[in-house]
Amino acid sequence: MTQAKAYAATSATSGLHPGTIERREPGPGDVEIAIDFCGLCHSDVHTIRSEWGPAKYPLVPGHEIVGTVTRVGAGVVGFSVGDTAGVGCMVDSCRECDSCLEGFEQYCENGNTGTYGVADRRNGGAITQGGYSSSIVVDENYVLKVPSGLDPAGVAPLLCAGITTYSPLRYLDVQDGDAVGVVGLGGLGHVAVKIAKALGATVTVFTTSPSKASAAFELGADSVVVSSDPAQMAGAKGTLNAIIDTVAAVHDINQYLRTLARDGALIQLGLPPAKMPPVEPGLLIRKRLAYGGSLIGGIAETQEMLDFCAEHGIVSDIEMVTAAGLDEAYDRMVAGDVKYRFVLDNSTL
Amino acid sequence: MTQAKAYAATSATSGLHPGTIERREPGPGDVEIAIDFCGLCHSDVHTIRSEWGPAKYPLVPGHEIVGTVTRVGAGVVGFSVGDTAGVGCMVDSCRECDSCLEGFEQYCENGNTGTYGVADRRNGGAITQGGYSSSIVVDENYVLKVPSGLDPAGVAPLLCAGITTYSPLRYLDVQDGDAVGVVGLGGLGHVAVKIAKALGATVTVFTTSPSKASAAFELGADSVVVSSDPAQMAGAKGTLNAIIDTVAAVHDINQYLRTLARDGALIQLGLPPAKMPPVEPGLLIRKRLAYGGSLIGGIAETQEMLDFCAEHGIVSDIEMVTAAGLDEAYDRMVAGDVKYRFVLDNSTL
Repeated sequence: MTQAKAYAATSATSGLHPGTIERREPGPGDVEIAIDFCGLCHSDVHTIRSEWGPAKYPLVPGHEIVGTVTRVGAGVVGFSVGDTAGVGCMVDSCRECDSCLEGFEQYCENGNTGTYGVADRRNGGAITQGGYSSSIVVDENYVLKVPSGLDPAGVAPLLCAGITTYSPLRYLDVQDGDAVGVVGLGGLGHVAVKIAKALGATVTVFTTSPSKASAAFELGADSVVVSSDPAQMAGAKGTLNAIIDTVAAVHDINQYLRTLARDGALIQLGLPPAKMPPVEPGLLIRKRLAYGGSLIGGIAETQEMLDFCAEHGIVSDIEMVTAAGLDEAYDRMVAGDVKYRFVLDNSTL
Repeated sequence: MTQAKAYAATSATSGLHPGTIERREPGPGDVEIAIDFCGLCHSDVHTIRSEWGPAKYPLVPGHEIVGTVTRVGAGVVGFSVGDTAGVGCMVDSCRECDSCLEGFEQYCENGNTGTYGVADRRNGGAITQGGYSSSIVVDENYVLKVPSGLDPAGVAPLLCAGITTYSPLRYLDVQDGDAVGVVGLGGLGHVAVKIAKALGATVTVFTTSPSKASAAFELGADSVVVSSDPAQMAGAKGTLNAIIDTVAAVHDINQYLRTLARDGALIQLGLPPAKMPPVEPGLLIRKRLAYGGSLIGGIAETQEMLDFCAEHGIVSDIEMVTAAGLDEAYDRMVAGDVKYRFVLDNSTL
């Protein structure tokens, strides 16, 4: 075991406090990473506050990890000491079910092993601890190569926000000339705009805040629709092929379904804390629409996403925070006061 | 103009009564058909009872029409006198929008012209009158060739129930080895079972009535799940690739979403009269599911469906009724007391 510095929550109301955790010695297939940066995801807040069910404390959150390889196991073939590497939302999965074998580890039928807060099936059931720490040890099959040429701090959020939006855009086969809507302009939404543009789509951003229009255009959006304005929503009717809905609050998707053209699809990524308003089946039937969901992405697809982002110069827009500023950053995240993702400078742990 | 015998409703509560209607003389592109059989669709009941909005009376329903060609216009190339021909849910569309040009006339962006009860854009705005009549005149582009070798009375329901289930099964690319669920075992559901089987799928029928199990097996179902039995529903969890949901009443689709495997889709075909229970986004997200809708099918696809049914010997199971028995048949349809489709013997008009 080695000791790692970390910021952990000790209860739902404790906030995050400094301490140390143990990391295993790298096994034959493991990569040890000194963590340079870790993105702050809204999931981190929900989890450590036990808003998604009781968390196992003490708990170190963080699943948007970028760092430098410090040791590799004897059997590791894909990584060398000194490489820049990334870890996203998963550190393992069963590797035997159809989903795992087909590269959809996120949908592992026996449950993927989340990067923090879940029992690690191959390491004695220890609770996984995330990236608000100085190091991590992960099986190389769940480690990503971070392409050179991208700001590593801006890459960190791609490991969750990037893949979560890239995967459905690719699954829907979005390509040159398609019209894509993005609902919500936060961590996921702002990356969705960049990726959809890089795929060749015309991008419409839906926002409840007229004040976000200029920011949306700066990100590359072709148009902005204020969703609370019925005239603007009516003007968008039937225009889009795909919608990436990043809003995790309860909201009415029927108004967005109306903006889809025949065979269009709305993919919801956020998990609201309460029931959504009912979908109107007539909207689906009359234009053969689909309302779907999507969960992060597989490991190979995450690597594909990183390479795509490198090719197109895409990183997350970030605001760097220190470890001492984590609690304040959480409060600002909950208030939506961030453009567009906080990233922890792990040298401040 | 020629006179045709017909059964029409004169108000929402009148029931159907015999009379005569006028049919236009066949124009250069028209086909005149002496109607032999017309299926009774639940839509007929909803429409003439003004349950889907105020109907235009007097109104002759019926959009599952099979008959014999009696005259053709000078420009008609696809039909000859004596041919067995069919007419389904549409008799025209704008023919100019993208949907029409791509063969999706059912999704015509300017509105398709329903076989009964709507203004006929190319014939002076006259209200279209359906198949509970002795003849009909339709542009040949909206007339189907009925393959020989199939019972023409059993073919009639295929023109609505058949294409409405065939189209989503094809859209979802259901093929050999796929697992398909069918919710509801009525007019649409029983044809869906036959078509899904002919496509090579393993078919599970969901029904609220344990008594329907033997009937489902007779139709070719591989298994039957009683949806009110939690243990049976749990046993089906994660097993299906596609579900064709034919139920038009308000119902909870979440229980069916749980029976889908990763990347599965549930396609709803019926339009419930009130709001459905909310969909649980987590079900969609955790298995990348889709909840969609589908509306009948295009003309070319309807022909493809008829040819497919001929190849596989598929017709609707029917109970023949006389014109005098229409009102009673409607009451039985509303009560769900039919296996599985009533067909009017138009010689009794």
